[in-house]
Amino acid sequence: MNYQPAEAAAEGGPETETTVAEPMTLINAFEVPGEQAEQFIAAWEKTRDYLETQPGYVDTALHQAVMPGADFQFVNIAHWRTAEDFRAAIQSPGFLESATGLAGYRPHPGLYQIVRT
Amino acid sequence: MNYQPAEAAAEGGPETETTVAEPMTLINAFEVPGEQAEQFIAAWEKTRDYLETQPGYVDTALHQAVMPGADFQFVNIAHWRTAEDFRAAIQSPGFLESATGLAGYRPHPGLYQIVRT
Repeated sequence: MNYQPAEAAAEGGPETETTVAEPMTLINAFEVPGEQAEQFIAAWEKTRDYLETQPGYVDTALHQAVMPGADFQFVNIAHWRTAEDFRAAIQSPGFLESATGLAGYRPHPGLYQIVRT
Repeated sequence: MNYQPAEAAAEGGPETETTVAEPMTLINAFEVPGEQAEQFIAAWEKTRDYLETQPGYVDTALHQAVMPGADFQFVNIAHWRTAEDFRAAIQSPGFLESATGLAGYRPHPGLYQIVRT
């Protein structure tokens, strides 16, 4: 983790300077044909290996559907310190090259926060 | 949580007859127009109130996109003890009534396991 003072101050409200917000949740559902699972996983791992070196990366977990028929065979659920960190990572020079293998799988990404439990 | 004695016994290791797996992750992405967020949340809460009474329910977290443009404004991420528990819950007599309010929002559900981190 790599909390920056500027970020902490922005979330802190008027009294404090160092309150840290909850991390952002990236949820990215991928359309992957059943028989391309291994190929997709290899491509995902290459992208993960790059992203985990970027500032603000917290963690990631690739989920695979346990039975055929789901609209999305794979869903990645990751956490980033801030939305800005995530955006900077995917706009960084090395990202596109790391993600080349994912180009054939339609993604449905979004940054989320938990609103109910 | 509502672990049953048989489930607890299964935690005992190789001497017992039933091995317990990691809980299943339900990921359900919903297509919800931006202006219907409050209406959707109210409907989701009613369904949650029912499902959390069912055997095998572990937890749930409704995620909302933090900015417009995501394909799915809401993604529910829940855990169930087993796939069978989840199936039994959504086939139980009270489920359809509890989920009436969600009928207008196209869901993309699937049961998942983590395959990479």
